[in-house]
Amino acid sequence: MDEPVVVGVDFGTLSGRAVVVRVRDGAELGTAVHDYAHGVLDEVLPATGAALPPDWALQVPRDYLDVLRTAVRAAVRNADVDPARVIGIGTDFTACTMVPTTADGTPLCELPEFAGDPHAYVKLWKHHAAQPQADRINRLAAERAEKWLPRYGGLISSEWEFAKGLQVLEEAPEVYRAMAHWVEAADWIVWQLTGRYVRNAGTAGYKGIRQDGTYPSADFLRELNPRFGTFVVDKLNQPVGALGDRAGGLSALAAYWTGLPEGIAVSVGNVDAHVTAPAARAVDPGRMVAIMGTSTCLVMNGADLREVPGMCGVVDGGIVPGMWGYEAGQSGVGDIFGWFVEHMVPPSYHDLARERGISVHELLTELAAEQPVGAHGLVALDWHSGNRSVLVDHELSGLVLGQTLATRAEDVYRALLEATAFGTRTIIDAFTSAGVPVDELVVAGGLVRNPLLMRIQADVTNLPLRTIGSAQGPALGSAIHAAVAAGAYPDIRAAADAMGAPDGATYEPIPANVAAYQRLFTEYTELHDHFGRGGNDVMRRLKALRREARTA
Amino acid sequence: MDEPVVVGVDFGTLSGRAVVVRVRDGAELGTAVHDYAHGVLDEVLPATGAALPPDWALQVPRDYLDVLRTAVRAAVRNADVDPARVIGIGTDFTACTMVPTTADGTPLCELPEFAGDPHAYVKLWKHHAAQPQADRINRLAAERAEKWLPRYGGLISSEWEFAKGLQVLEEAPEVYRAMAHWVEAADWIVWQLTGRYVRNAGTAGYKGIRQDGTYPSADFLRELNPRFGTFVVDKLNQPVGALGDRAGGLSALAAYWTGLPEGIAVSVGNVDAHVTAPAARAVDPGRMVAIMGTSTCLVMNGADLREVPGMCGVVDGGIVPGMWGYEAGQSGVGDIFGWFVEHMVPPSYHDLARERGISVHELLTELAAEQPVGAHGLVALDWHSGNRSVLVDHELSGLVLGQTLATRAEDVYRALLEATAFGTRTIIDAFTSAGVPVDELVVAGGLVRNPLLMRIQADVTNLPLRTIGSAQGPALGSAIHAAVAAGAYPDIRAAADAMGAPDGATYEPIPANVAAYQRLFTEYTELHDHFGRGGNDVMRRLKALRREARTA
Repeated sequence: MDEPVVVGVDFGTLSGRAVVVRVRDGAELGTAVHDYAHGVLDEVLPATGAALPPDWALQVPRDYLDVLRTAVRAAVRNADVDPARVIGIGTDFTACTMVPTTADGTPLCELPEFAGDPHAYVKLWKHHAAQPQADRINRLAAERAEKWLPRYGGLISSEWEFAKGLQVLEEAPEVYRAMAHWVEAADWIVWQLTGRYVRNAGTAGYKGIRQDGTYPSADFLRELNPRFGTFVVDKLNQPVGALGDRAGGLSALAAYWTGLPEGIAVSVGNVDAHVTAPAARAVDPGRMVAIMGTSTCLVMNGADLREVPGMCGVVDGGIVPGMWGYEAGQSGVGDIFGWFVEHMVPPSYHDLARERGISVHELLTELAAEQPVGAHGLVALDWHSGNRSVLVDHELSGLVLGQTLATRAEDVYRALLEATAFGTRTIIDAFTSAGVPVDELVVAGGLVRNPLLMRIQADVTNLPLRTIGSAQGPALGSAIHAAVAAGAYPDIRAAADAMGAPDGATYEPIPANVAAYQRLFTEYTELHDHFGRGGNDVMRRLKALRREARTA
Repeated sequence: MDEPVVVGVDFGTLSGRAVVVRVRDGAELGTAVHDYAHGVLDEVLPATGAALPPDWALQVPRDYLDVLRTAVRAAVRNADVDPARVIGIGTDFTACTMVPTTADGTPLCELPEFAGDPHAYVKLWKHHAAQPQADRINRLAAERAEKWLPRYGGLISSEWEFAKGLQVLEEAPEVYRAMAHWVEAADWIVWQLTGRYVRNAGTAGYKGIRQDGTYPSADFLRELNPRFGTFVVDKLNQPVGALGDRAGGLSALAAYWTGLPEGIAVSVGNVDAHVTAPAARAVDPGRMVAIMGTSTCLVMNGADLREVPGMCGVVDGGIVPGMWGYEAGQSGVGDIFGWFVEHMVPPSYHDLARERGISVHELLTELAAEQPVGAHGLVALDWHSGNRSVLVDHELSGLVLGQTLATRAEDVYRALLEATAFGTRTIIDAFTSAGVPVDELVVAGGLVRNPLLMRIQADVTNLPLRTIGSAQGPALGSAIHAAVAAGAYPDIRAAADAMGAPDGATYEPIPANVAAYQRLFTEYTELHDHFGRGGNDVMRRLKALRREARTA
């Protein structure tokens, strides 16, 4: 009854979730969610009412502190444990989400003189307005053959620290000047908890282009913009902490906010997707963890450094210290299914689902599940949100081929599920071809609830698949990190073994389906390469024409 | 008040329509429709209750006579004219629709011994079960380089006289033996009206492979099947009448059925699509008539014989005596839009259309019409029902490319409208390239009611477009033929000038749209050729896989 517990806090896009976990076995004792008061700012800046340009996405850092004040307290209360039993707290965050701060960590947007400047706010991961800067970074890095470029599949994202930082410099030089630190929200929250600013090895590597202990050179940065040459030294440089390490002790102020004991261990910050790996007991090489939600993030440890074309990044100790952490991604997954259900399904299906008390997703899944592989005669490309891995091209778009007058909603729905599985397989094949073998697929995220999708993933990839038996993957992972930081386990692997979630469901590939999907995957690959690798750049041209037509 | 009138009767797929027309100016004085009691037999044969195999489509010839008995009388009544004023009657029919008869024209299905044999019934145009026979005809014709083959775009359809006849021979030899004549329904109805069997020059050419006065050789037919060598001599051969000619006088029996005066002129039979040309005052070379409904039939006269790749056929006097009549077709048009509205449009659109008292088609058209060209970022291939002209490949299927999470139903709807217009343009370009220029597009059929589609057709083809100002195009055309047969006009052209329908609406191409569509059409063409001309035969393979999966 007085066994030690830890708290994990997962900061998502719209809310933060805290979970209280028993150190001995990972049992989840209580949880609570707090929605951010401001959510995502993507239309207007509330302080001024001024419209934000397209592709902007901001947040208000005070919302994050409210999670500490409310959700952590509520989770402890729901767990019905004495706060004195809490020996550590760990956090994970969306990334790359960036906070411009003063020297003491105060967000610039909290200073009266900057409250009306959108650049003084948090740039959320899905702020995509730094694309021109990202394009220049990529062009120059390719020209100069920067050796870090292949570690990112050949492309630095507009979402990451450098592109967003350069945007601030060029569009709001006064904000850039006033900004003492350009801080990952994952590290800012740990700073708030401990009073110490430690960069975590994960985001420093994946989002901050830190490789082999160094960042892109001053020379490179100067060539991007003469005033950007000191970006690393002035705005980024800071001690880096290994994942699972103790960043510091809980400060008196943070103890006051959270109701937790002052001085308990606070672990180094982390990324929501990556921290799911220990929660899924999948820290060994070869265990690919897919966090499948609106998009899919794929993470896996490898013993060696390999350059995998189209991956998002490979970072030494990026997921677990001592191993190379690989990340890849699919830009659109659940959001494609959601879009289809909302915009392409006729009334009769909605009516029937309502009558039966199930969702339209469930109805379509049920109808689609009855079909033999290939019976719909369709193949689709899952590029409605562009393609991250392995093509790294956000000018790509979706395609459905094979429709006839006999095609029904469940046929297209199934083809879209399959397309995302073909996308996953394409990534796994790229890893395998690059010498990073994949033996198992471990799935977390909201889409584990779709058994047909899981079945398709297993059959298309021809890999055994298991789902994580916890709905709180990231928060549980953060709690595991907290336990390690508190010294309850010697390392993340040991903690994951003891505390990781049980399996949810398991799916063994069915040989007949594997064979049939091999034929469909061959078709997918031919279309993938034709439209994605220069055979026909029609998607790019259509997007350009669309932009022209809409601005004319 | 005692001006002469004529009656035109249009025999469609589900009903027959009669119209009473004033000879002087083509004014439509009265009309009436009669639905066939048996409609289309495509599931069971009512006489036995036996199931019909897939792709079968039969009719009952007595249904046609009921049109003469009821609709003709009703139209005259509705016109409020004295039947004595009727100086002629003309008819048009779906084609190729074939009736197996005894020597006196009695349909075999009316003989007790054959009432239970499906092969004794009318094979409707859309009976597609003779595909294996058609494939053999095409293979052999290509091998032997039969000189008539290019006159049909290189492909004889399974819908036509020879494939269907060979199917009867091979699957029901007793029916074949008993069948004294293999009669186009277009000619059978004229036979019933006059007591004389005259083949019309149109179907004899387009569906009966009659070219330069002869049919495929006995030698060719014997090679298909030794017992088929006498097919032409035994089953088809019959005097051919020119379009607009008098086939005979109305028989006493037919006068009794119709209530019209015995002995009045009955014009030679015709095809519903072709007879629309005079109704649309479009008999001169260069005036392409598009009859746009579930599918589109394109007909045009030309001064000279040219071989146009992928056309359905070119026949001397096939539309108007003295000119080469060209026909081409798009397999899927209105049926694609209908399929989309029924199966791919979400409830909110249906609700809004209902609230506003308009159809979903009208709502989508209205929303799509607001977009500048290219704003949806999509391009589609209109092959949901395969492709007739110019690829002649029914293993092709539909494609939509460019979808994003921002794509809405009206975007796809517009892309599908555009795709069918690109399909029309592809055909027009084939005519132009073959030396058969097209100067004007004249549109008839149900889709004239969609002004956005008409606008897109004009802009995509860069041709002036006008719609026919009559909803009874074919029946009016048949009435025009009746007037010529009755001697009221010297020829079809003169009759069309006087009696053809007024223009409905006219659309001049808008140069800015023409330019924008040129870019989209270039994309369409690249996809068209890639998927339609062997670049990637994925559509063919998916159909094969689909068949395998569904029969496994």
